[in-house]
Amino acid sequence: VPGPGEQMAAEVAEQPAVLARLLDEGSGEAVDVAAALGRRRPRFVLLAARGTSDHAALYAKYLVELRLGLPCGLVSASTFTVYGARPDLREVLLVAVSQSGGSPDLLGTVEAARECGATTLAVTNAPGSPLAQAAELTIDVRAGEEHAVAATKSYTAELLALFLVLDRWAGGDGSAAGVLPEVCADLVARRGEVAELAQRYRFASRLVVTGRGYSYATAREAALKLMETSYLSAHAFSGADLLHGPMAVVDPEHPVLAVVPEGTAAAAMAPVLAAVAGRGADLLVLGSPGIAPAGARLLALPTGLPEELHPVVDIVLLQWLALEVAVGRGLDPDAPRGLSKVTRTW
Amino acid sequence: VPGPGEQMAAEVAEQPAVLARLLDEGSGEAVDVAAALGRRRPRFVLLAARGTSDHAALYAKYLVELRLGLPCGLVSASTFTVYGARPDLREVLLVAVSQSGGSPDLLGTVEAARECGATTLAVTNAPGSPLAQAAELTIDVRAGEEHAVAATKSYTAELLALFLVLDRWAGGDGSAAGVLPEVCADLVARRGEVAELAQRYRFASRLVVTGRGYSYATAREAALKLMETSYLSAHAFSGADLLHGPMAVVDPEHPVLAVVPEGTAAAAMAPVLAAVAGRGADLLVLGSPGIAPAGARLLALPTGLPEELHPVVDIVLLQWLALEVAVGRGLDPDAPRGLSKVTRTW
Repeated sequence: VPGPGEQMAAEVAEQPAVLARLLDEGSGEAVDVAAALGRRRPRFVLLAARGTSDHAALYAKYLVELRLGLPCGLVSASTFTVYGARPDLREVLLVAVSQSGGSPDLLGTVEAARECGATTLAVTNAPGSPLAQAAELTIDVRAGEEHAVAATKSYTAELLALFLVLDRWAGGDGSAAGVLPEVCADLVARRGEVAELAQRYRFASRLVVTGRGYSYATAREAALKLMETSYLSAHAFSGADLLHGPMAVVDPEHPVLAVVPEGTAAAAMAPVLAAVAGRGADLLVLGSPGIAPAGARLLALPTGLPEELHPVVDIVLLQWLALEVAVGRGLDPDAPRGLSKVTRTW
Repeated sequence: VPGPGEQMAAEVAEQPAVLARLLDEGSGEAVDVAAALGRRRPRFVLLAARGTSDHAALYAKYLVELRLGLPCGLVSASTFTVYGARPDLREVLLVAVSQSGGSPDLLGTVEAARECGATTLAVTNAPGSPLAQAAELTIDVRAGEEHAVAATKSYTAELLALFLVLDRWAGGDGSAAGVLPEVCADLVARRGEVAELAQRYRFASRLVVTGRGYSYATAREAALKLMETSYLSAHAFSGADLLHGPMAVVDPEHPVLAVVPEGTAAAAMAPVLAAVAGRGADLLVLGSPGIAPAGARLLALPTGLPEELHPVVDIVLLQWLALEVAVGRGLDPDAPRGLSKVTRTW
């Protein structure tokens, strides 16, 4: 009988190998998809996903806006599948991201989008899935079968697959990603450090996670992992949104985690960190020592990595945190209450 | 000296008059803006907003997708203002929604979008504001000066203004909205009923709010009001997203509020309500008696109203709830800790 969280831990630890395999075996597919997109020249991009994959989509949104200079939106699945809308999607690329490729609402969205004239791309861990078959273009993230209910390796593989396609579509050569397996391995090796830190959150009932720009995706995914495994009410806000109202829930009784890797967004997060610290919150900064206000705890993130690649690896420390907080509470993150691996929504 | 929440209560109660004034004085402006949009024929719509206004933008997203059949996205302000992206926005309409028209990041977004070729529309309560001046088109929501930190009347006025413009752009005549002041007045009159219900949440520390389609905006705004006024960790999820992971935080110890007015989305919410009830959660359904599972509490919503107009008025009951929960805790919703009326973010 496996111990609590062993399955999730094994998949967290597998991530350096998963990223290396995708770089090795998937780059050709990424080149082909990027070339097809280059020929199609879509002018707008829509992203469709649920749960963890929705955070991969959010990461892709920033890449599309910043690297490709195209307007981009996250699609409301209900528009197509509940309300039956059939919008004009000529010159639109719709990207569906899904680990299992099995969610009926995503499948319905891809089918409808195709009928409406969109170019469709499925990013999945299941190349034979209905979703992959429904889309015109597909990329297999090659994460291997994922058993843990809390998705980890499929998430980082989705991020890397999206980077490889979008970077090449934008004219890059994907080579910046070559360092990721090694950086990821360094983070995987820091489980003990995170386990010690997790003690602090043993009795937290709610928690705020914040980040901005590319790292907003990391904040969102960290909050979801904490909810799924530890049943914490973990609430993610972009740094700017946090200042608009939700700052009222920040107080000394509840922890705040801020994801602030080196890069352009870090400067924009400085006033957010100052406001959080000024309210006496218990603050943990994932970032570099220079950015953390006095009194904040620090979990160091890798240095020297392009900002746009940080989400692919930074999440590892937060996956460990979610797992260790859950185990510390006597919970089994491999058997979260109320959840199953494939969620079927319409 | 005004009592706790008197300012907010006065503005909640003002809403029927605000809606009537906007219908009366603002419809001409809406017709003109809709005509201008009809001439421009944008093919993609981006929405930019923060805080409460972001939920008005979310409402508009469904109207754009469903009524106009155009792809639509919520813009990440940081893309323009932090990262300095200058995407290709020809044939794009960018709509900025802001009560004060004073937030630097929204202003920066509108200026950048205009430079990048977008048609720009500002929906504000401040027609002389920098934001209104920066946009090519503007609509004044005419809510009157808003003093309470927790926005109420500016929100419902933003929703109605967006409906009036988008309905006409889609070929409607806006007349369906004529009933709103009266329906709103009926809801304003139900403060006592809501105050009684608010007792139940006196000691709740966290809470989930859910809705789908048009009503997802109502769920999001309700959660924000509860956070701002009562410092509850109120977490909104679309019904479909709730089933993907966050369902793990739903248990008998924490309340769930579901916004399920009559309409297409109600059927899609039925399995969500069943799942929530199945986990033994303390469930309050805002909707009609038929939709609430056994054991759930019910707060009746108006009947006979088109689904797309529900968000303009349903929020009133939740504004009262936020106010009454706050006052019941000895807090003053007019002086929420850590917040000021105009939030300046970059």
